[in-house]
Amino acid sequence: MRAIVHKQVNGSEGLCMHTVANRRPNAGEVSVRIQAAGLNHRDLFIMKERGDLDKSVVLGSDGAGIVAAVGKGVEHIQVGDEVIIHPTLNWTRTNEMPEILDILGYPSDGTFGEYVIVPFTSIEKKPAYLTWEEAGVLPLAALTAYRALFTRGQLKSGEHVLITGIGGGVATYALMMAKAAGAKVTVTSRSEEKRLQALRLGADHVLASDSAWSKSLQGGKVNLIIDSIGTAVFSQFLQVLASAGRIVQFGRSSGDKVEISLSTMFRNQFSMLATSMGSAEEFRAMLQFVERHRIRPVIDRIYPFEQAVQAFKRMEAGEQFGNIGLKM
Amino acid sequence: MRAIVHKQVNGSEGLCMHTVANRRPNAGEVSVRIQAAGLNHRDLFIMKERGDLDKSVVLGSDGAGIVAAVGKGVEHIQVGDEVIIHPTLNWTRTNEMPEILDILGYPSDGTFGEYVIVPFTSIEKKPAYLTWEEAGVLPLAALTAYRALFTRGQLKSGEHVLITGIGGGVATYALMMAKAAGAKVTVTSRSEEKRLQALRLGADHVLASDSAWSKSLQGGKVNLIIDSIGTAVFSQFLQVLASAGRIVQFGRSSGDKVEISLSTMFRNQFSMLATSMGSAEEFRAMLQFVERHRIRPVIDRIYPFEQAVQAFKRMEAGEQFGNIGLKM
Repeated sequence: MRAIVHKQVNGSEGLCMHTVANRRPNAGEVSVRIQAAGLNHRDLFIMKERGDLDKSVVLGSDGAGIVAAVGKGVEHIQVGDEVIIHPTLNWTRTNEMPEILDILGYPSDGTFGEYVIVPFTSIEKKPAYLTWEEAGVLPLAALTAYRALFTRGQLKSGEHVLITGIGGGVATYALMMAKAAGAKVTVTSRSEEKRLQALRLGADHVLASDSAWSKSLQGGKVNLIIDSIGTAVFSQFLQVLASAGRIVQFGRSSGDKVEISLSTMFRNQFSMLATSMGSAEEFRAMLQFVERHRIRPVIDRIYPFEQAVQAFKRMEAGEQFGNIGLKM
Repeated sequence: MRAIVHKQVNGSEGLCMHTVANRRPNAGEVSVRIQAAGLNHRDLFIMKERGDLDKSVVLGSDGAGIVAAVGKGVEHIQVGDEVIIHPTLNWTRTNEMPEILDILGYPSDGTFGEYVIVPFTSIEKKPAYLTWEEAGVLPLAALTAYRALFTRGQLKSGEHVLITGIGGGVATYALMMAKAAGAKVTVTSRSEEKRLQALRLGADHVLASDSAWSKSLQGGKVNLIIDSIGTAVFSQFLQVLASAGRIVQFGRSSGDKVEISLSTMFRNQFSMLATSMGSAEEFRAMLQFVERHRIRPVIDRIYPFEQAVQAFKRMEAGEQFGNIGLKM
C-alpha cells in the first residue's frame, strides 16, 4: 500500500510517499481502509524529536474509513462497516486515569496510509451526520477536549470557561462543547482574525493573549481554564480564577515551567488538573455528545494525501483555525 | 468572663488574660462553656500578621464544652448538652468547595475564653469516647486532614500515601486516618524523634526530609501526597508520584513559590489539589469516621488556660508531636 512515511531527517522534511508492506490483521485486529485522516501537533513533535530515524514510521493518530478485513475472534464488526478510530491504545484505568499510554501513529504505524491495522476495541461506528473528512479529523483533539472539560474539569452548565489559544484543534472543540453544555465561554488568541472566528463560533468574549485579562473581564471570574499555552499566559490564571476554580492543562506550547503561589492555591481551593487524551469509555461518550449536539469539526483545510508535507507546513506556521486533514 | 485576649503587640507577646463582656446568644446562636480548647498554627499567623492591633481579639478555632445558653429559634439543642465546635463559618457549597470562608477565632471571637458564642449549626454532639481534652483539640486539624485525604485526595484502600512534616496536627491525623482507611503510609520529618514516633503510630515507612526520597522508596511510587511544607520538599514530589497521582496542599511552612513542569504533569495525568478546612457535612463525616475507627488525637501537651503564652511558645518552637491544648 501507499503511505506517508517519516524517516532519515528530523522534521517534516523527513516525510515522503512510499509503498510499504500491507499485512493482514492478526487475531483481535481490524484493517481499515482510510478515507480521511487528521493532522495533530503530536505528529510534528514526533518528527522533530524522535531519535530512531533509521526506522520508517507511518504517522497519524486520527482517521476514519471502511473496514477492509477482520482478524480472528473479532465480533460485531464486518467488512464494509464505516468506522472512526480511537487513537488511545493500552489505557488502563486507575481512578479514571491511564496507567500506560500508547497512542496510534508512533511507535505503532498510524493512519497516514491507505490502510491501518488497529485492535478491534479501537474502532467505533462513524457518526452518520459527519462527512468522511469531518470524521477523519475528529478523534484525538475532540477526545482530549471532552476529557479536559468534563472528566477532569467537571464543567457544569452556567459556569464560565476560559480557553486559551483558540484556533488549535483541542481548543476549538472545547469552545463548541462548552457552549453545547451551557457554559459561558471566553477565549484567548494572539491573532485578531482567530478571535473574530471564535466569536462567529459562539464564544461570548475574546481576549488578546498579551492583554491584562482581569481588566478586560472587568472583575468577572472564570470557573475553569482549559490551557495548552503554559508559561506565557500562566501568570494571569490565578488572577481571573474564581474560588474553587480549576485549571486543566493538556499542553505547553510557549514553555514548560510555571511558578505557583501555594497560598493563593489553597486559600482559594484551586485545582490544577493535568490531562492527556482519554479512555475508550470517554471516546464513546464524546461521540454521543457531539452527535447529540450536532457538533462538526471546524475544518481549516483538507489536502490530498500526496500533499502531506504542505499540510504540515501550514500547521507548523500556526496559521490554521481548526483541523487540517488529508483526503485519501 | 475571663478570656485569653490578643492585642497591642504582634506575636504571642500580645496575649494576656482579661475579663471581657459575656453577652447572651442572639437568635440562632448558642453559648458554649468551654472545657478544653486547641492551639493551631492559624492562631500564630493571625498574631504575627494582623494589622488591627487596637482591637482585642479572643483567638481560638478549636474547642469543646457544655451548652450554657441557647438563643431563639434554636431547636434540638439544650442547655447541658456536651458538644464539639465546627470552626468553619459561612461555607457555601460550589462544587463541594467554599465560596466564602470565615473561621472561628478571627475576626469573630473564638474558643480561648470561658464561653464562646457560635451559630447553632456549628455544634455537634461530642463523641463520647473522647475526653474533653481530646475533643477540644480535634476540630480544625482533623477536619482539614479528612477533607485533604478523602474529599480532595480521593484516597482508596490499598493506595500509598506520602505525608510530609509529620508531627504537625493535620499531618498526624492524616497518618491515623489513612491507616484506618487501609492505605500504606510513608511520612517525612527532619526530626528523627518524630520519625520514630510516626512509626509507633503506624506509619509503614519514614523518610528524612532532606534525603533523596525516590532512592529510599527504591522505585516505589506513591498515589497521594499530603503536604504543608511547600518549597523545601516540592521538587521531590513529581519524582515519587505514580501515574495519575495527586498532590493535596494545605500549607507552605517552608515557602510559598514552587516551580512545576507542565509536561511532567500532563504526561502523567497528575493533579494538584489545594485545600483548606472543610464544610459542615465534612465535619460530621469526619466525626463519624474517627468514632468508627476510635481515632484519638495525639496530645502533645495540655496547659492550664492561664498558661496560653507558654503553650504558644512550644508551638512556635515546632517541638510538638500532635496537638497542644488548653484546659479551662
